[in-house]
Amino acid sequence: MRTRPLKVALLGCGVVGSEVARIMTAHAEDLAARIGAPVELAGVAVRRPGKVREGIDPALITTDPTALVKRGDIDVVVEVIGGIEPARGLITEAFAHGASVVSANKALLAKDGAALHAAAARYGRDLYYEAAVAGAIPLIRPLRESLAGDKVNRVLGIVNGTTNFILDKMDTTGAGYQEALDEATALGYAEADPTADVEGFDAAAKAAILAGIAFHTRVRLDDVYREGMTEVTSADFASARAMGCTIKLLAICERAADGGSVTARVHPAMLPLSHPLASVREAYNAVFVESEAAGRLMFYGPGAGGSPTASAVLGDLVAVCRNKLGEATGPGESAYTNLPVSAMGEVVTRYHISLDVADKPGVLAQVATVFAEHGVSIDTVRQQSRPDFQDTASDGGEASLVVVTHRAPDAALSGTVEALRGLDTVRGVASIMRVEGE
Amino acid sequence: MRTRPLKVALLGCGVVGSEVARIMTAHAEDLAARIGAPVELAGVAVRRPGKVREGIDPALITTDPTALVKRGDIDVVVEVIGGIEPARGLITEAFAHGASVVSANKALLAKDGAALHAAAARYGRDLYYEAAVAGAIPLIRPLRESLAGDKVNRVLGIVNGTTNFILDKMDTTGAGYQEALDEATALGYAEADPTADVEGFDAAAKAAILAGIAFHTRVRLDDVYREGMTEVTSADFASARAMGCTIKLLAICERAADGGSVTARVHPAMLPLSHPLASVREAYNAVFVESEAAGRLMFYGPGAGGSPTASAVLGDLVAVCRNKLGEATGPGESAYTNLPVSAMGEVVTRYHISLDVADKPGVLAQVATVFAEHGVSIDTVRQQSRPDFQDTASDGGEASLVVVTHRAPDAALSGTVEALRGLDTVRGVASIMRVEGE
Ligand SMILES: NC(=O)c1ccc[n+]([C@@H]2O[C@H](COP(=O)([O-])OP(=O)(O)OC[C@H]3O[C@@H](n4cnc5c(N)ncnc54)[C@H](OP(=O)(O)O)[C@@H]3O)[C@@H](O)[C@H]2O)c1
Ligand SMILES: NC(=O)c1ccc[n+]([C@@H]2O[C@H](COP(=O)([O-])OP(=O)(O)OC[C@H]3O[C@@H](n4cnc5c(N)ncnc54)[C@H](OP(=O)(O)O)[C@@H]3O)[C@@H](O)[C@H]2O)c1
Repeated sequence: MRTRPLKVALLGCGVVGSEVARIMTAHAEDLAARIGAPVELAGVAVRRPGKVREGIDPALITTDPTALVKRGDIDVVVEVIGGIEPARGLITEAFAHGASVVSANKALLAKDGAALHAAAARYGRDLYYEAAVAGAIPLIRPLRESLAGDKVNRVLGIVNGTTNFILDKMDTTGAGYQEALDEATALGYAEADPTADVEGFDAAAKAAILAGIAFHTRVRLDDVYREGMTEVTSADFASARAMGCTIKLLAICERAADGGSVTARVHPAMLPLSHPLASVREAYNAVFVESEAAGRLMFYGPGAGGSPTASAVLGDLVAVCRNKLGEATGPGESAYTNLPVSAMGEVVTRYHISLDVADKPGVLAQVATVFAEHGVSIDTVRQQSRPDFQDTASDGGEASLVVVTHRAPDAALSGTVEALRGLDTVRGVASIMRVEGE
Repeated sequence: MRTRPLKVALLGCGVVGSEVARIMTAHAEDLAARIGAPVELAGVAVRRPGKVREGIDPALITTDPTALVKRGDIDVVVEVIGGIEPARGLITEAFAHGASVVSANKALLAKDGAALHAAAARYGRDLYYEAAVAGAIPLIRPLRESLAGDKVNRVLGIVNGTTNFILDKMDTTGAGYQEALDEATALGYAEADPTADVEGFDAAAKAAILAGIAFHTRVRLDDVYREGMTEVTSADFASARAMGCTIKLLAICERAADGGSVTARVHPAMLPLSHPLASVREAYNAVFVESEAAGRLMFYGPGAGGSPTASAVLGDLVAVCRNKLGEATGPGESAYTNLPVSAMGEVVTRYHISLDVADKPGVLAQVATVFAEHGVSIDTVRQQSRPDFQDTASDGGEASLVVVTHRAPDAALSGTVEALRGLDTVRGVASIMRVEGE
């Protein structure tokens, strides 16, 4: 074993960074044995130097991360600041000054992964980011390495713990969205401003990263179709249950049937209770991968939290350090397929549509005609008179019509819904939800 | 990209090998792009040269695997013959003659992994064997690399598809062991001689491999406690259901509470229905990993079959080829902790015991005294008169007594059972099963 230590600069010492530092100290001997050389924390960059940070030598603290990465003696930079800048500039400087990088920064990787990978390759460094997607769950490495000899056709994942917690509460307690969100906030599962989670931005960043790796192409954040889950209601859960489904916010990356393009999207969807992802409870994450030779795989675990995320960061740290010692680099970006990313309209999926319609003869025929005109075939229809509306409606009663379609292009499905809204017998479209996982 | 191809020798072209060859041909361009150089099938060793092998150039076929690995121009040897010899000798020759090795051979790895790793290290080659445990499921790589910065405390897995299929059938259809085995055989899930599967030998080999990697120590096949599942009955499933459990054949690797030793074992066990492994159906495999920082992770997928196993082999092939090109080697054996493996008696677990006892006052007190004398505390007792036995029994009726214990050392538990057998009010011990996963 080499006795001269590898030097690690830690950028950020918050939820994740403080756990990285703690484990590096607590398990220093194990890490040294596994790497083949000791690792030394050479500096810790933060914003607030005065904050008490248990277990961290105050002499290591700096508010000048740029100076730290430019020192020239740093072997590995661990970036756990988050956000675009200064993280992006710091990572690039790190490569230029001899360091490989481990990051947990999904936002940055989704936005600028290609440029960062190119910089890493130019300088012959590693860029690892297992922690950026689904926290502690080994996912990037299995996709990039274990499945390197296979052809992935589909990735279907619950990659945001906050929204899974909220949807699980709505499902199991009957709570509405706001009530479930309040509980998530009280328990620390949701941030004060939950937008990034509930509007699907966080999941979309992860979908972009996963799709790129799974299909060996480049998928930009803008390529990912995104719909949040703030409009999911208790009524939607009732409809889902009636179909033997639950509702999950899914990140879905798919190769088109003809293999010539890929899609990536994030939206709430009904999922059969028999699907392995349906039983993922609370804030857990899980990702389902379908590949040609391996078949159906699932990876499950905690998707966030300081210590789980630190586990992923440290796994990468060990790998990057070993590569340094062996004067090698791990697998870099693989985007050779150059597959284009198709728009949402080309995704082939199923819709569950609830309509409020006039309760009179001929309505179903009218509605069915609209579906047929758009080339969408209907799987099941359930029609129900709504006695509560009988008195107030002007032209007779109101009924609700629940239509579940067969698979069709999303454009045809949304065209159908648009046309339905134009029918005067359709009083309103109560909800639309995609049905996945079959 | 390098144009000179890397040369691969395929040893064995059966269920797994034929799929490896097929995918290497079908996805040659993808493999080349991912590796950075083309890979060429340089030779295929089999036993029966006359057999028609679709898609394989007959000129590549040889019955002399030794000559093939000694050619000197082979970069990677893929060993999918199975068994100890000639596989072991061929792998060693491969290292000596410049090749790295990918193998799917759990029996050999469990028996001689340490010596093979040493040989690989001596010659500076790679030895990869993701396919040896749980087929297509990425498991060795996640344990060895993704969790390299974490401390694994427990691995709990369903690692044999044949026995999971049988137990699942028994659970869902009420079939007995023999009937379920017959169905497994008819469907090709069980071999003509199912001993290796149903007696737990296959799972024990995987447990030895997993425990060694998880705890960074050496675990020999003989260190693994092994009990098959041929004696599990429909009555056991009924008892399990009464406790909210199912029965699975589990491979369990644990670090002792004091951290000073490890254990590895394979046996049928009751598992709460709420445990993620309880819902693993049919021939699927799944492995649950508990680590200090990451928490609870689960990996799920097909544990066997030609094409899933080939996926794992090819993932390793890509990694090993990349290492070759980069003149590096991947992580080798990590056994630095040198933790001793304790005997089964030291495992701390729970028992579910069904006793046939005389239906008369004082029996429960007698039985409870035996538990107390062995330091085993009782969680629940259920006593039931068995009217069907009233007439035939000589001294009054017979009752059944079901005792579920709290956690205690296995030695104390089996000592208790031994003493119970000695009581004359205990007519028989109907079944003993461990309870896990809580
Ligand atoms: N938290 C999770 O569960 C989780 C899971 C997966 C991935 N991640 C990712 O991990 C990264 C870090 O997340 P986190 O939750 O640990 O964030 P955090 O708790 O907000 O910590 C951020 C850290 O960066 C420091 N920092 C902020 N701006 C800085 C600047 N300009 N220069 C130097 N230091 C600066 C902060 O300093 P002060 O301490 O002085 O404020 C703090 O130590 C993000 O990319 C996030 O997406 C987090
Ligand atoms: N099958 C699975 O689902 C699975 C899953 C995980 C791991 N594995 C492992 O993968 C390995 C291969 O399994 P398999 O199911 O593919 O076995 P298999 O179908 O029996 O194939 C064995 C192959 O090895 C050849 N062979 C046997 N002895 C030989 C010798 N002395 N010299 C040269 N070739 C010889 C056979 O030649 P012929 O074709 O001429 O008979 C055959 O092609 C085993 O280690 C097994 O444990 C298998």
